[in-house]
Amino acid sequence: MEPLWKEQDYVCCSGSKRFAKEMAAASPFADLDHALQSARDIWFNKIDVNGWLEAFAAHPAIGAASPSISQWSKEEQSTALATATDSTVLELVEWNARYREKFGFVFLICASGRGTPEILAELKKRYLNRPIVEFEIAAQEEMKIIELRLAKLFKTQARTTPSVTAQ
Amino acid sequence: MEPLWKEQDYVCCSGSKRFAKEMAAASPFADLDHALQSARDIWFNKIDVNGWLEAFAAHPAIGAASPSISQWSKEEQSTALATATDSTVLELVEWNARYREKFGFVFLICASGRGTPEILAELKKRYLNRPIVEFEIAAQEEMKIIELRLAKLFKTQARTTPSVTAQ
Repeated sequence: MEPLWKEQDYVCCSGSKRFAKEMAAASPFADLDHALQSARDIWFNKIDVNGWLEAFAAHPAIGAASPSISQWSKEEQSTALATATDSTVLELVEWNARYREKFGFVFLICASGRGTPEILAELKKRYLNRPIVEFEIAAQEEMKIIELRLAKLFKTQARTTPSVTAQ
Repeated sequence: MEPLWKEQDYVCCSGSKRFAKEMAAASPFADLDHALQSARDIWFNKIDVNGWLEAFAAHPAIGAASPSISQWSKEEQSTALATATDSTVLELVEWNARYREKFGFVFLICASGRGTPEILAELKKRYLNRPIVEFEIAAQEEMKIIELRLAKLFKTQARTTPSVTAQ
């Protein structure tokens, strides 16, 4: 059993306030799998389109250098950063802007393990989508990011917090 | 050929500013069919999800009595109004609120020719949908409303404005 996490513990998993609230309401979870199952149900069935946009808005643009980027974002983008060259970074900045102009939100991709050329190719391919199609793909990518972050949350807490059952 | 309509002429067809702008940029249209074809392309391929939400926000709740409701909205809802009873109106108000709470936008239906009991049944059925599914259905209903209004615009203008070809 996980420790009884509160709303603010889930904020680092997704920028949707309602997601954090619903996760806190659904906890405690028996294990990570249970938490992931609830997270998927909440994200796809209970968060409305405004909540999705709110979550997307919490992400920095892929490849953007900003002091406000979280440690987890940095870790997720470490392969992208390691494979970036000056020209691919410039191209990424240009295509990020083009994408935002067309779709009205940041290009979202679960960057973990992906190099900059792969991300750029994906961005160019997805740019051709209809806005509603792309909106749903972005939500699926956000779900992958939430899954990675939930796993990190469980791992971190297991190291630092005595669990309820161990008390 | 239609008269050379401007952005403000299309604002009464949809609350999305970008829709009006793109329609003005695509005009003049050879006839209503040409305009409808362009409108569909613009609405589904060029308006992003924020634009869809902007258009939805321009609609009054179905059955709501408000002095700011446009004449076209009133006409579209005339069957609903004629078939409304006190109890169905109350139920509609309650379900509209429930719908908005779940999805974050107003319940949209092309009301033309539909009675209140039919609208209420549709609302209750659609309430069960996932938010993203409902978002796309709402956009399809908005497209039907745009089609009706474009037809009205052509009809009105045909009566009041000498067309370019007739000059």
